[in-house]
Amino acid sequence: MNSLHALETPALLLDRARLDHNLARMRTHITRLGAQLRPHVKTAKSADVVGRAVPPGTGGITVSTLKEAEQFFAAGYRDILYAVGIAPNKLDHVAALRARGCDLMIILDSVEAARAVAAKSRATHAAVPALIEIDSDGHRAGVKPGAALLTEIGGILGANLRGVMTHAGGSYDCKSPDEIRVYAARERDEAVRCATQLRAAGMPCPVVSVGSTPTATFAGDLAGVTEVRVGVYMFFDLFMAGLGVCAIDDIALSVLCSVIGHQPEKGWIITDAGWMAMSRDRGTAGQKTDQGYGVVCDAGGKPVDDLIVASANQEHGIVARRDCAAIDAARYPVGTLLRVLPNHACATAAQHAAYQVLDDASGIASVWPRFSGW
Amino acid sequence: MNSLHALETPALLLDRARLDHNLARMRTHITRLGAQLRPHVKTAKSADVVGRAVPPGTGGITVSTLKEAEQFFAAGYRDILYAVGIAPNKLDHVAALRARGCDLMIILDSVEAARAVAAKSRATHAAVPALIEIDSDGHRAGVKPGAALLTEIGGILGANLRGVMTHAGGSYDCKSPDEIRVYAARERDEAVRCATQLRAAGMPCPVVSVGSTPTATFAGDLAGVTEVRVGVYMFFDLFMAGLGVCAIDDIALSVLCSVIGHQPEKGWIITDAGWMAMSRDRGTAGQKTDQGYGVVCDAGGKPVDDLIVASANQEHGIVARRDCAAIDAARYPVGTLLRVLPNHACATAAQHAAYQVLDDASGIASVWPRFSGW
Repeated sequence: MNSLHALETPALLLDRARLDHNLARMRTHITRLGAQLRPHVKTAKSADVVGRAVPPGTGGITVSTLKEAEQFFAAGYRDILYAVGIAPNKLDHVAALRARGCDLMIILDSVEAARAVAAKSRATHAAVPALIEIDSDGHRAGVKPGAALLTEIGGILGANLRGVMTHAGGSYDCKSPDEIRVYAARERDEAVRCATQLRAAGMPCPVVSVGSTPTATFAGDLAGVTEVRVGVYMFFDLFMAGLGVCAIDDIALSVLCSVIGHQPEKGWIITDAGWMAMSRDRGTAGQKTDQGYGVVCDAGGKPVDDLIVASANQEHGIVARRDCAAIDAARYPVGTLLRVLPNHACATAAQHAAYQVLDDASGIASVWPRFSGW
Repeated sequence: MNSLHALETPALLLDRARLDHNLARMRTHITRLGAQLRPHVKTAKSADVVGRAVPPGTGGITVSTLKEAEQFFAAGYRDILYAVGIAPNKLDHVAALRARGCDLMIILDSVEAARAVAAKSRATHAAVPALIEIDSDGHRAGVKPGAALLTEIGGILGANLRGVMTHAGGSYDCKSPDEIRVYAARERDEAVRCATQLRAAGMPCPVVSVGSTPTATFAGDLAGVTEVRVGVYMFFDLFMAGLGVCAIDDIALSVLCSVIGHQPEKGWIITDAGWMAMSRDRGTAGQKTDQGYGVVCDAGGKPVDDLIVASANQEHGIVARRDCAAIDAARYPVGTLLRVLPNHACATAAQHAAYQVLDDASGIASVWPRFSGW
């Protein structure tokens, strides 16, 4: 791993073997349950990473921004679902992407948005295919299953209606795999129930789309579901480990940093990876084990001395033992390289412009760029 | 303000009049106290913004990364202080910048780092000027004032010693302006005391550098201080308003977003500005008034209906009244533009690639790019 020493810190590391393992496991699982995988690119925002999950031309993807749609359409993807409720000021952009040959679908959950879509479709003499978002767990957005609003929206969409979608975001607050299984079953059940409601009203509903990494991982039955959307499963993170969705050893992402000082009487090691490198995400603060701003590993990726990033400033990380005990500073002299596992892969990766890709055999094998913004 | 409607949301807005007011007020205050202003560019990361605080060639700046040093050296700045303890793996980069004509200073607080600097200086036959970091308030890094370590490090640095610096980061936890005044006085006193200690040992100490936006704002005496470093004062934010350092009306930065849906029975408005647009920063959670992920304003920038971004997902903001009461959704139909004031300007700005600069008279006047990364 000598080539790590050639990097200027902080830097974002990606363990290729772990990535490939995570990708293969999820694909096998979802395929066995009879659904298609529609990976969400919002975590990776990298054609190199997503190309390993679904090579261009071989399947659909999910995006969280039109910038992602633009970038991945340019990288050869055509079947794209933009899975955030459409804002009217984005409809021109959506129509332009579709006119260029991108089969971009959008989502919505209101009469107002459906009317805006129908109007855009009439004005452009072209369909703007939309899924109706379903609120399967009271988590965030979507139409309540069983509501008359569902067929009302479907009627307004008319030929633009492509199906239904839901996201069991409430699964992130679960306390056990058994609880996640309940969310997974409900996510499927409610989506299928809404599809049935639309079809009973004589409306087409070819797409029944569900997904979140926790529910996908623990799904036992996807009958009636056509596709599953998952993103963070590619890298995993401490939050997912805290949920029981992965093991710490599955986490493919880490931030390489350098020791830049010590405050021995406080039991602190100071590093050059602050919240700008880790993100401000403190998702594990609400879990059983609060991992601070991240779990500290040696340069080989192995957690050491029960160290966490206890607090962070913009470009400073303050590393301490979980029990606040003294640290043998001589073990971590200035210049020592450490790696930090993140709370939330989506947030941490977003702080960096590229992945330094680790090959177990020979250190940094390649650099994969990523993008950000809207 | 019609041109706001031409933007695709989310977008980062910068109120130029407020920016200029904030810049002028701090410059007047610090100049009156007899010190130089060395603005910190880590908040803005934009030559357009910083050029209004200190035009190239007219004064020094502070940076938090070598990327900032590179970018601002290219923009015409020569006198640059890199104010994060140096990691040995960055010394080659520092020496290269200096060799190209950048008068880059670094900081350190350990014998190990001082030895690395002295060795680099000998190897390159060129000075690597360094300030010794002082811990004036037990906040983070630095040598304790009065410690023999100070002159020990000074002796190792030899001709590379340029002075001392400290940052009263503890002022961010103050509960009142009076308490901030105590931190400001101590920041000055301890820096001057350490400079005196070095000079008494026969060492040069031309630079005595202090600063944080709270302590600079409330400083009453800077005798013996040569320069003051401040960054967030350019934009201000809800955290600074909560500290009493600025008024809500001074905040120059906001995130423009669109209403994309409603959950009326929960009192929620859903927008397209989630934590990717706001950052995960929840700094006000520890203050008297928790502002959630930000205070919600109308498109004109005026706070409305006591709305805050109560929670956030990656690309979704959940807006609710502070008292959780019902909202008249008809006032905020799908497509309504809202502006959100951020908890922390440094963190929120970092999520965006450019500032949409608002001119009070005519809407968006210009677009100022910003950079990120290391």
